[in-house]
Order: sequence, then structure tokens, then C-alpha cells
Amino acid sequence: MIGRFISLEGGEGAGKSTQVRALAAALDARGIPALVTREPGGSEGAEAIRTLLMEGAVARWSPHSEALLFAAARADHVEKTIRPALGAGTWVICDRFIDSSRAYQGVAGGIDDAAVLALHGFGSRGLLPDRTFVLEVPVEQGRARAEGRDGAGADRFAARGDAFHEDVASAFRGYAAREPDRVRLIDASVRAAAVTTALLAGLSDLLP
Amino acid sequence: MIGRFISLEGGEGAGKSTQVRALAAALDARGIPALVTREPGGSEGAEAIRTLLMEGAVARWSPHSEALLFAAARADHVEKTIRPALGAGTWVICDRFIDSSRAYQGVAGGIDDAAVLALHGFGSRGLLPDRTFVLEVPVEQGRARAEGRDGAGADRFAARGDAFHEDVASAFRGYAAREPDRVRLIDASVRAAAVTTALLAGLSDLLP
Repeated sequence: MIGRFISLEGGEGAGKSTQVRALAAALDARGIPALVTREPGGSEGAEAIRTLLMEGAVARWSPHSEALLFAAARADHVEKTIRPALGAGTWVICDRFIDSSRAYQGVAGGIDDAAVLALHGFGSRGLLPDRTFVLEVPVEQGRARAEGRDGAGADRFAARGDAFHEDVASAFRGYAAREPDRVRLIDASVRAAAVTTALLAGLSDLLP
Repeated sequence: MIGRFISLEGGEGAGKSTQVRALAAALDARGIPALVTREPGGSEGAEAIRTLLMEGAVARWSPHSEALLFAAARADHVEKTIRPALGAGTWVICDRFIDSSRAYQGVAGGIDDAAVLALHGFGSRGLLPDRTFVLEVPVEQGRARAEGRDGAGADRFAARGDAFHEDVASAFRGYAAREPDRVRLIDASVRAAAVTTALLAGLSDLLP
């Protein structure tokens, strides 16, 4: 049996890190081994690149350098962590993947979607998740959660205006509209257990 | 006046780092301000990426991750160091540039030349030097120089067989054959002062 590759996407404060853990636990309870991972990062090399991306000033990297660094980190993550796990029959539940690069680098960096996908094709042979869930919360709710969590989350959220967060959300909705089989929208404004239930329901066709 | 962008290429032990300094000094003596820089590196961000590329095992990165990291470093170097210097009228003398990525990633990593150039087009808007000099020494002479210099140079040289060094040299000769106006072969087996004289002669059409 080959594992399935699931990614969770959404803005800051949408509850992604909570839900990747909850979904993996729910799969484990059904006898399905599941690995939780995240981007940028998820392998030794990619975590080193993550440090480069996260430290220093927000404008440390140009949008193009940043896109190349994300693609390099993803290539390492895919090669060292994701493909070996899938090949061993383990499901992979990933906190952010290629759609975050498309949305953030497209909206914030003005980089063409085709260029982001071309880098992904080069670095990671274009690997796409079997299913991607976009966790949707209203911008105000995302801000409240990010602010409640820690200083860094609040800082990142506050550094961008509401229009930015709306544009990112709109980009994610566009992927769901264009790839309805892969990308599904999930109402993440409800309590966490209900979100997990919705995620499991959205995997019914992939579950053994 | 806009500065000229000159790169020096060649295998290990060809004398590139000596000649970039000698060439800059010779230009300075002619009243032409010249900046010496190197790849990977040459800007704060690119030097941080250089550390990632140089530390750890040789096989730490896949050829594709490595190509993306080189392109990210180059994009930062071009944006933060090279373009500003050229715009200020300073000549830039760079120890390795895109042709090293083409040769090494093509020969060692098996990556298509078109793919390396596409990453360069994305990251650095395809900036090419006004002139590139390939310093040529016989493989045995390059090995002797690398071994005489320091442990790391000897290790890098010895880690590859002679066939690898011949293939890299052949790749550089191919660029010279295909772009004779930009890429010039220089006999670097002679003493250093004679190489510098040959470099200056090879810039006669670009000198003011």
C-alpha cells in the first residue's frame, strides 16, 4: 500500500497546526500510520533553509530569491521525508505545501503562478498532494487567534493589512475552484473537533 | 558611465582567486574602480546560502536542491551587490558566475543546461557578464595547485576523478565556442603576471 499525501492550507490563525496533529491522530486511531510535517522545513536541509527564510528582516530576500529558497527547501523535504514515507505506506499530513508558495509569493511577491509551478516542477518533479484542505476563517477570527498564540504570529499577521489576507484567501479559493478534486474548502470557524470531522469526511474516498 | 561585469571561470587550482585580485588592481591602476566578489556568496544573504552549500557531506543536497540554492544565492548577489556596483560605474570582477553552475551542475548533477539557464532567468533576469574568461590549466597542474593550497582544496579536487575535471573543462570550452564574444579561453598554465596581461588584452575592446 502506498501512503496518501494530504496538505492543509490557509492563512495565519486558521488552525492548521492543530488540525494536522488532530487528523494524524484520527488516522492513527483507524490503523493508518500518519506522519506530521510542515513547510518550510520537514527535513534537516529544509529546516536549515527555513531558518534563513524566517530570520532577519521581512525584506531580507527579494521575492525571486525567496521563491527559489522555498523551492529548494521543498525539493529537499519531498526527497528526504515525503516520498520515502509515502513509499513505506505512511500517510503524510503536511502543514502548508506548494499552494502556500503560490498564494503568498503570488500575492505578496507578484510572482506568476506559472513560474512558481515551474520551480516546483524542477525541484520536486511537480509532486502534488492527493488532497489539499483550505481551512477558512474570517480575517478577524484569524487575527484574534494569531494574536492569542504568540508574539511572532501576531507580528506576522499585523505586518500585513486586511486586504493582503483577503487576497491570500481569494487565491486559495481560486485553486479550489480550478482543481475541485484535489483542493477542498473547509469551514474552520467552528470548534476544532468539528473541523477534524469535516477533514475526515473529505477523505472518505481515499480511506481504505 | 556604467561599469562592466567580468567573470573568471575554470576548475579548481586554475588561479581564479589570484587573478580576480590582480585584474582589479590593474584596473584600479588605470583609474577604473573595480569590485572583487565571488560565488557562491558576494552578499550577506548569498554568503549565508554559501555556508549551507559548503558545510556538511558532499551529498547533503540533491542536484536539484543545489541548483535552486545556487540560483537563490546568485539572485541575491546580483540584486544586492552586482547591479548596484555596475549602476554606480564600478566594474565587477567575479570569481565564478553562471557558467560554473552550468558546468558543475550539468556535469556532476546531470541537470540540463536549459534548466540552469531558466533558473538564472527567473532569479537574476538572466544577467550575463560582459566578458567571461575561462582560465585553463592541465588537470595535473590544477591538482598540484589545489593540493599545495589547503586541505579543503585538495579534498575537493581528489573527491572527483580526472574524467570529471576533464568534463568540466570541456563544458567551459563549449561555452567559449558557442559565445565567442562573451567567453574567452585563457592559458593559465603560465606565470601569474602573464595571465593578468592576457586578461587585460582580452578586455581591450571594453576599456574606456
